[in-house]
Amino acid sequence: MSTDAPWQQFFVSTDLAGLEQLNVATLQTVESLLSTGDAPRSSLLPADLHAAVGRLEVCPEDGAALAQVLDEFGSIVWANGVVPGDPRCVAHLHPPTLLPAVVTELAIAATNQSMDSWDQAPAATEVELHLMSWLAAALGFGPDGTGVMTSGGTASNVLGMTLARAAAANRLGVDVGKSGLPPESRTWRILCSDQAHFSIQRAAAQLGLGRDAVVTVSTTPAGAMDLDALDEKLAALGHDGLVPLAIVGTAGTTDLGVIDPLEGLAERAEQHGTWFHVDAAVAGSFILSTKLAARLTGIERANSVTIDFHKLWWQPFNASALVVASEDAFDLLRVRSAYLDRGDELEGMVNLVGRSLDTSRRFDAAKVMASLRTVGRKNLGAMVERCVALASYAGELIARTSGLDLVAVPTGVMCVFDAPGHSAEDLRRVQQHLLACGEMVLGRTEIHGRAALKFTFMNPSTTEVAIDGLVEKILETLVLVAN
Amino acid sequence: MSTDAPWQQFFVSTDLAGLEQLNVATLQTVESLLSTGDAPRSSLLPADLHAAVGRLEVCPEDGAALAQVLDEFGSIVWANGVVPGDPRCVAHLHPPTLLPAVVTELAIAATNQSMDSWDQAPAATEVELHLMSWLAAALGFGPDGTGVMTSGGTASNVLGMTLARAAAANRLGVDVGKSGLPPESRTWRILCSDQAHFSIQRAAAQLGLGRDAVVTVSTTPAGAMDLDALDEKLAALGHDGLVPLAIVGTAGTTDLGVIDPLEGLAERAEQHGTWFHVDAAVAGSFILSTKLAARLTGIERANSVTIDFHKLWWQPFNASALVVASEDAFDLLRVRSAYLDRGDELEGMVNLVGRSLDTSRRFDAAKVMASLRTVGRKNLGAMVERCVALASYAGELIARTSGLDLVAVPTGVMCVFDAPGHSAEDLRRVQQHLLACGEMVLGRTEIHGRAALKFTFMNPSTTEVAIDGLVEKILETLVLVAN
Repeated sequence: MSTDAPWQQFFVSTDLAGLEQLNVATLQTVESLLSTGDAPRSSLLPADLHAAVGRLEVCPEDGAALAQVLDEFGSIVWANGVVPGDPRCVAHLHPPTLLPAVVTELAIAATNQSMDSWDQAPAATEVELHLMSWLAAALGFGPDGTGVMTSGGTASNVLGMTLARAAAANRLGVDVGKSGLPPESRTWRILCSDQAHFSIQRAAAQLGLGRDAVVTVSTTPAGAMDLDALDEKLAALGHDGLVPLAIVGTAGTTDLGVIDPLEGLAERAEQHGTWFHVDAAVAGSFILSTKLAARLTGIERANSVTIDFHKLWWQPFNASALVVASEDAFDLLRVRSAYLDRGDELEGMVNLVGRSLDTSRRFDAAKVMASLRTVGRKNLGAMVERCVALASYAGELIARTSGLDLVAVPTGVMCVFDAPGHSAEDLRRVQQHLLACGEMVLGRTEIHGRAALKFTFMNPSTTEVAIDGLVEKILETLVLVAN
Repeated sequence: MSTDAPWQQFFVSTDLAGLEQLNVATLQTVESLLSTGDAPRSSLLPADLHAAVGRLEVCPEDGAALAQVLDEFGSIVWANGVVPGDPRCVAHLHPPTLLPAVVTELAIAATNQSMDSWDQAPAATEVELHLMSWLAAALGFGPDGTGVMTSGGTASNVLGMTLARAAAANRLGVDVGKSGLPPESRTWRILCSDQAHFSIQRAAAQLGLGRDAVVTVSTTPAGAMDLDALDEKLAALGHDGLVPLAIVGTAGTTDLGVIDPLEGLAERAEQHGTWFHVDAAVAGSFILSTKLAARLTGIERANSVTIDFHKLWWQPFNASALVVASEDAFDLLRVRSAYLDRGDELEGMVNLVGRSLDTSRRFDAAKVMASLRTVGRKNLGAMVERCVALASYAGELIARTSGLDLVAVPTGVMCVFDAPGHSAEDLRRVQQHLLACGEMVLGRTEIHGRAALKFTFMNPSTTEVAIDGLVEKILETLVLVAN
């Protein structure tokens, strides 16, 4: 299909010779991963790492052999990452990844479909739509439920708020995408809890409303939005002539993993005729567990829902989705372009660019669907339950450990605690020491102004014994840094 | 490091047994690609494709064997995609992908670093920074030049416009991220050519300014921004009390591949004290060619530059970058968060979340750097030159082909043409017929209101003979649809 141009060797091709070459290179790549070792991270300090990476010339005049480059990446880059699957890597919602997803990434990259138009992604468009329909149905949406894949929870939340803004403007007869924010937008407020993710503030900033347009509602000691406080805020907005643009519920807060009372939020949103968005980036996969799914009741009444497949669905970054009740929700977003989405295509040739804030876009839906089909609902549900059980175990252990204090009883996959008698600076030093020497990648945060440490359990294969070890190591390190 | 939990088999691990399992699965994945065949796409129609994908249950109660799932993806999904490397796949800036990038995707997914914080991506942070420094230097920026990877050209353009908006607000003493658009923002205008990518309009919509805030400047017959027209628009803005928020130059327009007179734009931006952004998504890789690099002169004076590695750098989606003259440019964006970016980390522990509109973010820099190191500057430069030469060849061929008419002499990798005596509807039918029967994936667009067809040459190994075949096939199909 092409000449023997000298560069052909650098490209993937799917004829027999091309695939043989791909086989050889993938085997070398897999081999290069062996250097990742068995610690949560290497003990190289930033300056050493900077020097090691800096010695690699980015783009030499003449290329180097692929085997050599893969080898360098193995010893310098992969060996000095963090290892999300290691039981001592517990800082963030940062998962180990599923095998079916990882190998599908190879096929995604080799075939390189682009999700913006049907003529760049015919089968891929169908797969994404199929996955989105399934997800919407699993969340309890009606038969028209659908969605779009995005590059992350922040992007999904921004898209949800973009739709909310468009809907509010539309009620005033304004096309906000065309003519910009109307003067009335000064009165628009987004309500979310004080434990909501900072991407809600980012969305407000991005959309021109400003972070000041976000009204944070206080939370119960457990960390869920307080419905009485929400009612007070809504009443106060009314008094001040301000308008709720959206009520944002969080299903799984970033630090405590808590789920807001979604039904109560749905009721308020309906009463006030406002957009109801649920950020279920963290706890969305509870729908896979017969035990945990009921905690999400009310999510099916949302106008938009953020789901992060790259959290407790164990997908490699990036894989997020925004789910909506109907495709119509995207109408306010769509702008036709002459080269990409004219609207005069053959029936069924759907151009997903009309649903997205992106143009070129990766076929991430493939890895998600390959994973769900391989692992199955029962296993996935059990894996989610196991991570929740691990956090509960850690909570109980810390509650009975003298020298440590639980900030809140875990209900999700995180466990947040501090150490009475120790300052925020001590906690900082514990976390930084463990990170610097490569012994533990531990979380650190602040809850209602109280400095705290945090475990996040993303690996269902982690053991109770491993958690015992984490707690012991923290106690030791507290002594060390206090001296 | 963990129990023999039943789910462990589903995860990638980097011990010997885990890597052996990964080897087996990657070999199966590579095998499944053989079904992609040797056409630009299969001839399955949307309805058939919809039915075939719909028969796959997304998330069965019990999982299926991975080998089976990979096999299904092979025969249903990969077999029915488009094949970007096929010489008859010429619709979009949709590249075949480089082998080093594709195999590195596997390692990226297996190790799953997240670029938002150093403790989720220690070596990866250094690699991204190293790549960004190289890129900034290659573009001619000073030693402080740097940047950040984004999910696409649209995201890079949105980030560039976000920085421009912040800078304009800052001059008024307003923190736009905090308090929202000031009243003065009604006077802000973004100037770009009428051939600029629609993502500039999208950015204006997203930022609350509205698409109406984009002033399009007319272009020369060749398709480059007309500097006299720009001067007139700038003068008219001044008369009307309007303020240029940014001047956006395009280096490689979407349809004609034309580069705006960047030095002239840089001068105007400096005169008016406004942000200068260059969207070099299409032609940014001309810096790799000693022959073509001079066409980008002036780009080094930009405040921000969009580079799409997933175009003429042959990277799999997604891989884009926003380059800036100095890290300070991101200061207006940064908001600290307690759990992710406190600012009290050890020296050198850089959290890239402060540069980005995303939070969790894929380590796409790895595949770019592995590719550049393997292929080398000389080959990459020659590959870019070859694609430009192919478009020139097509242009010459069409110019002397009766029945076809060149819209503009190609200077980039595209060739746009129409067929005198044929209506826009005829052209639509040609493109749709070839797509539907799987014989060619052809571009279709509109230049200054004139319907046209488009070739985009992204595969340097394509031959002149293949281009002859494309033109013949189009002539045949024109006859077919006219009857």
